[in-house]
Amino acid sequence: MFSYEVIKVDKHTGARVGRLVTPHGEVMTPVFMPVGTNATVKSLTPEAVDRTGASIVLANTYHLYLRPGHELVEKAGGLHKFMNWNKPILTDSGGFQVFSLSKLRKITDDGVTFGSYIDGSRHHLTPEDAVRVQNALGADIIMAFDECTSADTDYRKSGRAMERTLRWLDRCVKAHTDWDRQMLFPIIQGNMYEDLRKESAKATAEYARCGIAIGGLSVGEPKEVMYRMLELLRPYYPQDQPRYLMGVGSPDCLVEGVMRGIDMFDCVLPTRIARNGMAFTRNGNMTLRNAKYKEDFSPVEENCDCYCCRNFSRAYLRHLINSDEILGGELLSMHNIRFLVKLTEDMRTAIMHDEFADFYKDFKEKYAWDRKV
Amino acid sequence: MFSYEVIKVDKHTGARVGRLVTPHGEVMTPVFMPVGTNATVKSLTPEAVDRTGASIVLANTYHLYLRPGHELVEKAGGLHKFMNWNKPILTDSGGFQVFSLSKLRKITDDGVTFGSYIDGSRHHLTPEDAVRVQNALGADIIMAFDECTSADTDYRKSGRAMERTLRWLDRCVKAHTDWDRQMLFPIIQGNMYEDLRKESAKATAEYARCGIAIGGLSVGEPKEVMYRMLELLRPYYPQDQPRYLMGVGSPDCLVEGVMRGIDMFDCVLPTRIARNGMAFTRNGNMTLRNAKYKEDFSPVEENCDCYCCRNFSRAYLRHLINSDEILGGELLSMHNIRFLVKLTEDMRTAIMHDEFADFYKDFKEKYAWDRKV
Repeated sequence: MFSYEVIKVDKHTGARVGRLVTPHGEVMTPVFMPVGTNATVKSLTPEAVDRTGASIVLANTYHLYLRPGHELVEKAGGLHKFMNWNKPILTDSGGFQVFSLSKLRKITDDGVTFGSYIDGSRHHLTPEDAVRVQNALGADIIMAFDECTSADTDYRKSGRAMERTLRWLDRCVKAHTDWDRQMLFPIIQGNMYEDLRKESAKATAEYARCGIAIGGLSVGEPKEVMYRMLELLRPYYPQDQPRYLMGVGSPDCLVEGVMRGIDMFDCVLPTRIARNGMAFTRNGNMTLRNAKYKEDFSPVEENCDCYCCRNFSRAYLRHLINSDEILGGELLSMHNIRFLVKLTEDMRTAIMHDEFADFYKDFKEKYAWDRKV
Repeated sequence: MFSYEVIKVDKHTGARVGRLVTPHGEVMTPVFMPVGTNATVKSLTPEAVDRTGASIVLANTYHLYLRPGHELVEKAGGLHKFMNWNKPILTDSGGFQVFSLSKLRKITDDGVTFGSYIDGSRHHLTPEDAVRVQNALGADIIMAFDECTSADTDYRKSGRAMERTLRWLDRCVKAHTDWDRQMLFPIIQGNMYEDLRKESAKATAEYARCGIAIGGLSVGEPKEVMYRMLELLRPYYPQDQPRYLMGVGSPDCLVEGVMRGIDMFDCVLPTRIARNGMAFTRNGNMTLRNAKYKEDFSPVEENCDCYCCRNFSRAYLRHLINSDEILGGELLSMHNIRFLVKLTEDMRTAIMHDEFADFYKDFKEKYAWDRKV
């Protein structure tokens, strides 16, 4: 049921356009996947998410395991039916959330014991459990259970976590059975250490059937370090499989990632900054609270085709944000997701015409993450 | 530009179906008007509001006067354009909010001095100001500036407030000029005192051109007292104009109001209880947090045609509410508004067939405000 085809490689940069086929439909890559942590892309109906052009969404195993529980989602008929999203879904394994959200976690070769972020209750998850939970949730793409380390972890600890991730990967692959229904992506670790990353990439690629992921980046390191890691890893990916850079989703990182051969991205950024009143634009990030937008009756972005930009002004959005009205974050979430989806569409078009180098140059001239418009 | 036609009077109950024509389209009565306090029906896009079948929304002059300011809304091209709602809008005058929200208010014959609920800044509003502000906002229907009293106000004070409301009404009518663009509804006051209410109704009716409102009810009195007041007032309304019962919108009050000759209703109730996880049903109110809905995969209401009921289960809504996910309140807001709009549609159908007495009996057998399902 799964396949990936590289449709086009940009002549000058090697950036790729591809088509990933899943049981719930096709995903063109490069792709940005909006995050629906609790089986909902925050504040948006599935219909509104669909309208942004998103072709696949991500949900969090860690959160859904704790609430409402994977058994409940399974009884509901699986995640697709539960949240009423009929296109592809990807679930992470919970590894990253155990690392980032849980207090008092204890990691052994067997698995992870951690306290729930909701009520502190103790839970134990093994690689086999993570696969079983994701089998119950029923996403099209599921992730191996990995041990993620923060950017400041020393070499020895990083090496041990990378090796454990490989041992866990072997157990995940053995525990997963129905590969026609769900594709399992293995995850490369190794922190910011070149030899660990290379070793991890080579060993991990052996387990990749239709997709491989890069984890443990965007965990506090400078962007340049992340880009260097991606360049380092590039020769080691399977060529005929999509490469997923986990948890990365700022506009500049998307473009830099595609330049370095990445095909898939996910991030909470577009919806999180939306709720704080910030919008992506091709010229930089727009803080709608700013007084200069008070009487600005133009849309957030002049040529944007999203529901927000087609119908509402900066002045209205500013009013909503200043009044703590939910609709403000909702409309900006629509815009920000559409912005990233459109960015991937435009990158695909550029790649198809062997013009990605020009696109990259133009984009970087206009956009900077810290530029405020 | 304004007209009202009574299309049908139910033979047995006198309940009415009518058609109100405004510059932004027709409104069939009985009608429920969702409230968009800050120029947004909380959490819903105008498109989502439209899909509930709502034909007119209300916005609050008091809130918009303070933020973003009526001059800004006027510069934006008026409320319709600002909030992207192209059907009729009604703005209240701010009188009720001065009464309910403001600290340190001082009322004289000239007008009201009050502290802003946002920053405590002092403001002074006269009846002429209230009309001028509403002229700038540009709603189809605007309200006279009135002095509202709480249910426990004594006879003497209630009488003075009623008389002042009449003097202010005279000034509002004189201050308003473009009656083709905006219809001004006068407001009956008089607290719970029969002679004051009668006197107010008679004098107020003299000012009514295409609509009259009943204010100062649902302010803390028992529902039976409100119903008695409505029965008392019934002979004094102009027959060929719509009657608007302000701030009332629970399902039972809608049905009881129509039984007593009311044509228009508004209330924040459907969206407010939605955000608290409660849904209207014809059998009573449903608290989605309840454990019994944990594995209930049926929709909130089996035969409801709203977006929420067509696509999501009680179990999913319970999960969203328990996870503090915005989408929960959003979906329930859609349902609750659709519920009230559908209720008015069903009442109109019953009235058209002279079957409103049966409808009333059936409804009351099934529904009670305090019944939990």
